[in-house]
Amino acid sequence: MKAGIAIFPSKKLQDFANSYRKRYDPKYALIPPHLTLKGPFDINEEDLPRYSEKLEEIAQKYRPFPLRTTKISSFHPLNNVIYIKIEPTPVLVDLYNEINEDPFFGSPSENQFVPHITIGQELSNGEHADVYSQLRLIDVEFEETVDRFHLLYQLDDGIWTVYETFLLGK
Amino acid sequence: MKAGIAIFPSKKLQDFANSYRKRYDPKYALIPPHLTLKGPFDINEEDLPRYSEKLEEIAQKYRPFPLRTTKISSFHPLNNVIYIKIEPTPVLVDLYNEINEDPFFGSPSENQFVPHITIGQELSNGEHADVYSQLRLIDVEFEETVDRFHLLYQLDDGIWTVYETFLLGK
Repeated sequence: MKAGIAIFPSKKLQDFANSYRKRYDPKYALIPPHLTLKGPFDINEEDLPRYSEKLEEIAQKYRPFPLRTTKISSFHPLNNVIYIKIEPTPVLVDLYNEINEDPFFGSPSENQFVPHITIGQELSNGEHADVYSQLRLIDVEFEETVDRFHLLYQLDDGIWTVYETFLLGK
Repeated sequence: MKAGIAIFPSKKLQDFANSYRKRYDPKYALIPPHLTLKGPFDINEEDLPRYSEKLEEIAQKYRPFPLRTTKISSFHPLNNVIYIKIEPTPVLVDLYNEINEDPFFGSPSENQFVPHITIGQELSNGEHADVYSQLRLIDVEFEETVDRFHLLYQLDDGIWTVYETFLLGK
């Protein structure tokens, strides 16, 4: 099965993101709004406890850190994903790197880390141009504290379920 | 906002439940398959850490316990909810009672605890009779270990997001 590691922001920021996701993101119902720390990777269900142990070790090394949104942006022309851009603060980047460079979690991602919360995807070029031209004008000024992240796994129908929460610095 | 406390069973049992939920449960996309320990209650977001603390204390007192499904049943004529019945083992009932009788969590539930995983709801009487007459014949023999439960809260659009996991006996 597939597992993933993600941060769920505050209810306020999740509600804001979902007000767009419900219109522009076909994956809206599969998972609440999130910042991906590690995208889908293969795992056996019986190995989940080993992953938990490893992530608990990592979480202990960090302290809660600020999360700040900067604007609405897009990965176009790479793909038609519209997202809330998150400031790549040093602690967030360190946490991401620690998880993604550890051979425990498989081969490291080759993409540069652009912290974000997706609000639209799988849009045609026309839809993307239309939607993005409006959304990019919106002010998104959220500032909050991240004190946890989650290990999730995916059910057969694509829905993600949380396996465990890891509290930073605990 | 609303919060709730639930157990998510194994992937296998969640997949089994979702194969029916996707057809018979309009709340399918709001939350993965679960056994409710405490139904929706009002909470302020800033109080979540206090609830976490309390639930951590409770979780520490328990050890992982077996979860066994017994059959597919229905709450009809009380309501048209079809569910997977879970054996009310002493530890599960104790955990439920501890959470539901603690004044910390508000007034106790007046319903008797019938541990279950909902697979169908909001069915008309005709649909209920039709669906239930088929589903009640299905053998459901899952046996697994529960070693955690979760505190969730509800977003404005009805989707539930996990705030924290509590490991039994840790």
